Amino acid sequence: MSGDSSVAGAAAGWPGLNERAAIVFDDLVLRSAELRVKPELVAGACVVDAGSKVRGGLHAGLSLARICLSGLATVNIIPGELAGRPCPQLQVATDHPLAACLASQYAGWQISEGKFFAMGSGPMRAVYGKETLFETIGYRERSKCVVGVLECRKPPTEEVVAKVALACGVDHSAVSLAYAPTASLAGTIQIVARSVETALHKLAELKFDLTRIVSGHGVAPLPPVAKDDLAAIGRTNDAVLYGARVVLFVTGDDESLAAIGPLVPSCCSPDHGAPFAEVFARYNHDFYAVDPHLFSPAQVEFQNIETGRTHAFGRVEPSLLVRSFFE
Amino acid sequence: MSGDSSVAGAAAGWPGLNERAAIVFDDLVLRSAELRVKPELVAGACVVDAGSKVRGGLHAGLSLARICLSGLATVNIIPGELAGRPCPQLQVATDHPLAACLASQYAGWQISEGKFFAMGSGPMRAVYGKETLFETIGYRERSKCVVGVLECRKPPTEEVVAKVALACGVDHSAVSLAYAPTASLAGTIQIVARSVETALHKLAELKFDLTRIVSGHGVAPLPPVAKDDLAAIGRTNDAVLYGARVVLFVTGDDESLAAIGPLVPSCCSPDHGAPFAEVFARYNHDFYAVDPHLFSPAQVEFQNIETGRTHAFGRVEPSLLVRSFFE
Amino acid sequence: MSGDSSVAGAAAGWPGLNERAAIVFDDLVLRSAELRVKPELVAGACVVDAGSKVRGGLHAGLSLARICLSGLATVNIIPGELAGRPCPQLQVATDHPLAACLASQYAGWQISEGKFFAMGSGPMRAVYGKETLFETIGYRERSKCVVGVLECRKPPTEEVVAKVALACGVDHSAVSLAYAPTASLAGTIQIVARSVETALHKLAELKFDLTRIVSGHGVAPLPPVAKDDLAAIGRTNDAVLYGARVVLFVTGDDESLAAIGPLVPSCCSPDHGAPFAEVFARYNHDFYAVDPHLFSPAQVEFQNIETGRTHAFGRVEPSLLVRSFFE
Repeated sequence: MSGDSSVAGAAAGWPGLNERAAIVFDDLVLRSAELRVKPELVAGACVVDAGSKVRGGLHAGLSLARICLSGLATVNIIPGELAGRPCPQLQVATDHPLAACLASQYAGWQISEGKFFAMGSGPMRAVYGKETLFETIGYRERSKCVVGVLECRKPPTEEVVAKVALACGVDHSAVSLAYAPTASLAGTIQIVARSVETALHKLAELKFDLTRIVSGHGVAPLPPVAKDDLAAIGRTNDAVLYGARVVLFVTGDDESLAAIGPLVPSCCSPDHGAPFAEVFARYNHDFYAVDPHLFSPAQVEFQNIETGRTHAFGRVEPSLLVRSFFE
Repeated sequence: MSGDSSVAGAAAGWPGLNERAAIVFDDLVLRSAELRVKPELVAGACVVDAGSKVRGGLHAGLSLARICLSGLATVNIIPGELAGRPCPQLQVATDHPLAACLASQYAGWQISEGKFFAMGSGPMRAVYGKETLFETIGYRERSKCVVGVLECRKPPTEEVVAKVALACGVDHSAVSLAYAPTASLAGTIQIVARSVETALHKLAELKFDLTRIVSGHGVAPLPPVAKDDLAAIGRTNDAVLYGARVVLFVTGDDESLAAIGPLVPSCCSPDHGAPFAEVFARYNHDFYAVDPHLFSPAQVEFQNIETGRTHAFGRVEPSLLVRSFFE
Repeated sequence: MSGDSSVAGAAAGWPGLNERAAIVFDDLVLRSAELRVKPELVAGACVVDAGSKVRGGLHAGLSLARICLSGLATVNIIPGELAGRPCPQLQVATDHPLAACLASQYAGWQISEGKFFAMGSGPMRAVYGKETLFETIGYRERSKCVVGVLECRKPPTEEVVAKVALACGVDHSAVSLAYAPTASLAGTIQIVARSVETALHKLAELKFDLTRIVSGHGVAPLPPVAKDDLAAIGRTNDAVLYGARVVLFVTGDDESLAAIGPLVPSCCSPDHGAPFAEVFARYNHDFYAVDPHLFSPAQVEFQNIETGRTHAFGRVEPSLLVRSFFE
């Protein structure tokens, strides 16, 4: 088997992650009326509101999710049911789990500038490259354009654009940012599209050899948009922690999968068992105080494509989802 | 939140509904062999048979549904099950529920000309604009081209084309019509794609403030094509009345949702409980004699994106679907 | 109803099957880095490795399946569940069942050349036209380009290209071949996309009038990639034999459907009831010794679009799938 990990592949001359994301971003701008989003120039950068002062919607959310994933994943809405009620689900499939989910989608760049704060996602992170995660995955890229998605309610200011441009070594006009609050249709979809990413990030934390992960498939229920961003943080986390089911297609030995598997799903954490809003409140809304092992899909299955063996861990928790979504 | 209702948006300079529908219509014509439909010129207008003298098919039905919705919705087939049997379902998702479903898709234009009769759907209705529904939604459009879908078995005649052109104030050559009988694959799909529309129309009847409806998601089982158009009217209605599950993403207060909710699903009607063919026969096949409150999805859930609360009403009726589809 | 069978349609001047497949094939080549496949020139022909020395993936598999079907079917991945575990499914829908499934997709061309052996699928078969199946379906085509998909681990050699070119009467440079082993992600998907095809082939064996089949919809669970190609033959067959559910939309009388129906699903075979790997071993891995009636979907439903009657036969066998996939 040749050295064809997707991240290495991305480095080997084909379009970079930011170039790929830019194609999806341009489509978002072009269809802004249809997607009910609003592009503006901020300090020369293209900044798209996808759910703060505009409505945005389900399709704007799909676009944001695809931008976050650098266009390297299929993302779509599928019907679902929860406690006898209709509850659409979000499906993600990728053959570039490291490039799409970790080098791009993971919301690992905290962008703080004056009163502005947002978690930054998307492939601009791979150009910035300062997160320790990039040491682990061994991929960074240079790019003439950088593309990011911000989870925030306030529009990114000129100073935010300047900060991103400087950090990435590009002109202001080379920055493209889309943003949506957690409590919006587009924000919800963008976040719940992280089922596979969450499994990968957990495996990175567990020091699993990520190059063994060939492809990924995930599905998670779409929570109702919450009344405010704090409540929305609760529900979107619950959708993943208690509702996401992920299949990872991996290589290598089975013993390591059997050993690490029980540590992967969210149920391995002592913080598992309550809606995330409760857990978060328990720690005074300090993300870094929550047990990091909680952040993982409800269920993770490894399919070893070399040995043919399958290892499934964890379980969905419909009753917790009902409490989170409907009460 | 800015005044970004989709209908207002449509009026504000971006491509009109008929222009959008024309793009999907042109694709139908271009792929006519693949979609097994037959375009013809009738009095200068492009008229496409999608299931009367030609077979049409599942994909022709998807095209017809997308034309009806002015291209402002995702429509696709999803696997499903009914009573242990495979029963594909039809999923619809839109961020422009008023423009796509009410201003376009609702089959509210009765086109009668000599012996020809058809229910007319699609955005040509918004140009004609004489249905009282257009008073309610406050949207009409002028367009150089008009696009419609007719539920009928007989081909629209030259007189029908002339009537539509005159009513819309356009040349014959600016009229595009596709048609399929109720008892055809394409006709079935086109009708069963109305899950969200049916919920909206019911809410219009109930004088609900439609501008509160931001987005919609629906799914309904695909009934087997019936032996004749009358029987097909029964089954396609049953698919919605007893099988459709709709989620509406709305704004505003919860009290009004809790109050109106029980009146929305089909089960609120005294005519609920029998296959529609029986109900229809009971009223001597006079649509206008049937309780109008019956015409609604089996289950409707409101997700209030401002308060975070969810309200679900109604229920699917698998045993009625089995009687309708398989007996 | 005009003589609009898809195969006749294909003959009537619109793009041939190989031309259609070539469009999907060119997309596979163009997106080779993204799809993680590797195109090479072999004796002047374009040969794409989609899972032997390269990883390939889920999306490469979808491309292979669409090539096999000459682009005349929708193929996508849908979430699914088996025994409480996530198990993605593969959905296929076509309005050209004979052209897409029998004239193209059926793996009926055994290509043997020196030590090379592969089952050949795709529309190149319709140009070669020597399989007796082509007598039955009455369709062959001439084409300037020929496109095929091979189920094999070894790359097709120059001699294989020469053999295909000669058999099809085209230059080497007019041959396009993609290949993937059974035990690969792309290979698995390509094979499990055969749910509708398997039903049609069984009906061909039973001498059913295939022109009665208007459209088809199928779904089958995606088995985990097996440890080697022999084990993968077991699992991919089990996915269809014990997991596939097919709906065929047909014309004609109901008596013939009621009569032939019980003979169609795999459970009509005395070899039904054990994982295919066991059955295959029982016959010393001689395909032709296995009861040919076993090769059929688990469940087949006929929807008669002329009479409105539906006839369902067979059943899925989750416990056999669990034994095959997870033990």
